Amino acid sequence: MASNTIIVSHRILRKFVTEVFIKLGVPDKDADIIADVIITADLRGIESHGVARINRYITRIQKGLILPKTILRTIHETPATLLLDAGNGLGQVAGYRAMERCINKAKKTGLAFVAVRNSNHFGIAGYYAMMALPHNMIGISMSNSRPMCVPTYGRKAVIGTNPISFAAPAYREKPFVLDMATSVIPVGKIELFKRLGKKMPLGWAVDRKGCPTTDPAEVLAGGGVLPLGGTAEFSGYKGYGLSVMLDVLCGVLAGASFLLLIENELGGIPAPSNLGHLFGAIDIKAFRPVKDFKQTLDEFIKMIKNSAKAKGQPRILIAGEKEFEITERRRKEGISLHENILTSLEQIGNNVGVTFSYPIRNIRRQR
Amino acid sequence: MASNTIIVSHRILRKFVTEVFIKLGVPDKDADIIADVIITADLRGIESHGVARINRYITRIQKGLILPKTILRTIHETPATLLLDAGNGLGQVAGYRAMERCINKAKKTGLAFVAVRNSNHFGIAGYYAMMALPHNMIGISMSNSRPMCVPTYGRKAVIGTNPISFAAPAYREKPFVLDMATSVIPVGKIELFKRLGKKMPLGWAVDRKGCPTTDPAEVLAGGGVLPLGGTAEFSGYKGYGLSVMLDVLCGVLAGASFLLLIENELGGIPAPSNLGHLFGAIDIKAFRPVKDFKQTLDEFIKMIKNSAKAKGQPRILIAGEKEFEITERRRKEGISLHENILTSLEQIGNNVGVTFSYPIRNIRRQR
Repeated sequence: MASNTIIVSHRILRKFVTEVFIKLGVPDKDADIIADVIITADLRGIESHGVARINRYITRIQKGLILPKTILRTIHETPATLLLDAGNGLGQVAGYRAMERCINKAKKTGLAFVAVRNSNHFGIAGYYAMMALPHNMIGISMSNSRPMCVPTYGRKAVIGTNPISFAAPAYREKPFVLDMATSVIPVGKIELFKRLGKKMPLGWAVDRKGCPTTDPAEVLAGGGVLPLGGTAEFSGYKGYGLSVMLDVLCGVLAGASFLLLIENELGGIPAPSNLGHLFGAIDIKAFRPVKDFKQTLDEFIKMIKNSAKAKGQPRILIAGEKEFEITERRRKEGISLHENILTSLEQIGNNVGVTFSYPIRNIRRQR
Repeated sequence: MASNTIIVSHRILRKFVTEVFIKLGVPDKDADIIADVIITADLRGIESHGVARINRYITRIQKGLILPKTILRTIHETPATLLLDAGNGLGQVAGYRAMERCINKAKKTGLAFVAVRNSNHFGIAGYYAMMALPHNMIGISMSNSRPMCVPTYGRKAVIGTNPISFAAPAYREKPFVLDMATSVIPVGKIELFKRLGKKMPLGWAVDRKGCPTTDPAEVLAGGGVLPLGGTAEFSGYKGYGLSVMLDVLCGVLAGASFLLLIENELGGIPAPSNLGHLFGAIDIKAFRPVKDFKQTLDEFIKMIKNSAKAKGQPRILIAGEKEFEITERRRKEGISLHENILTSLEQIGNNVGVTFSYPIRNIRRQR
């Protein structure tokens, strides 16, 4: 089966995304940030959060559900903490600026947490955690998200697939970058299985009665995905607990929406998301010399990678490793996108008045 | 089958444990802390970390692998961070004192992290996280642990079942207290299945080739448990990533041992554990008024608990809820212990010179 995949340079995509957001009234500098977060997702191979997603942001901006100008207001500040209100602006801009301030605060106190409320979907959590790396800090980033996940013993999606990211710098090895949702799988994977007419493994999701099912249609008809772990037999209540922990930090602590209140359509009218995020920065030198830490992390990574492999497995991966490899390749060779995505980008361009063109030499059809 | 369970008052157990540790050269105040951590585990229904475990600590103290006097030394301090060396003392004492200092620091800066190195097994992580609750703070507690868990695509147990706990106070509802290991199940559960001659669900553990197996004997013969999630198909790499994250914070950042270096027997000679812990305290009022936070958490908890239940399930639990109920019951009615445990406590008493006696009226045999 030909996959109809076309390869486009990340520079071309970045320029296009920037121009689109500027056309929507987003300030130039903010559009640069948004484009960088989005293209970084595509470069890292997390296509669900890359250019394939921009239409969701654009639609919400056009409907007035996200404001194009992100004005951050300080609500409360202590030496090591800060609470910001993002004024229903863009999650990427709020995330970037909040993490910048978090890093600056951690330089003074060794550690800082910055919470953000009244924000929107911020893209990949890993982007903000990784901002700490060049400062020789450990970065932490988390967000709540709209309810798509069913708690243990429940049958309604009331908890989010709330992501957490954690980035720590190594010396010669690539940084350790964990960037994960707290559900077993993303909802998009269930949609994919339905399109392909495939049965899912038992333990990914439940039907509208809360019973585990292998039928993706049953899940999409009113059930939901399970938290990391899956059913109670596999300790799914741990993933459920992690999801709640993140919503307590991002929703309750920040004073944002949480659980069912997120994107709760009042009388069928879509509402702003009012998402909450939490960013953390730990200055490594507050604990031990940076070089010691980094060299120890090298040793740590090698100890895992050099340990015995399962039968038939050539290697053990470290969180983020695959993404760094994909990034390196895609920076050189371009980002492969399904032709449907490119068509939708062209439509977006027509819609907002930006030409989307990519040189023929960048097109490659793959099998 | 009669279960030969005997119910003993938590006061009697507490007194016995305190006396045993004092006999081993532990200062009175420290013995009180250790007993409180251990009895709290039994009260919460986490028997694996209660009196059933004290023999492991005692043996290590008697062998000189844990020092009875816990002297904490400050290695480095900034406004929001602190690194302590526990001098190979008791993990419970190190944890208690570290969390006390963490809370005091957070009062000044809004947030603090305290790392500890050169420590030992500290019991239930939840104990220290919950210490933050009466201070209207969110508590965080984590530790690394000896390798018992196999990374995704590996076949050797190189990562720990590293626990994390997170406690947040509510207003009328019980606090949210997550206290979890990052493995699918504890190793003890595999031993239990072997004793009972039962097959395990596929996805809990792998054999010595790294292949998932239902045979507990195969796992104990050289395989290991899987991280939360289980196999890669169920995103076990997320649990693996969480386990590594905790070891980076507790092992690498604190400058403690990590992965295979923990309890690494040199030439067959048992070595001190050199475990690392990390404690965190977030002062809620640094973000929003305490009462607002607590009432919002009430609303949050009720929203989950009142949501639709899975077929046949009477209730949805919040992390820590079951443990609070068990505690309330066990405080009144006593702690039920298998008679083998009581026999081992009597032996410990004889060994160190403390009489273990419990009044007849506290004995109940159950079916």
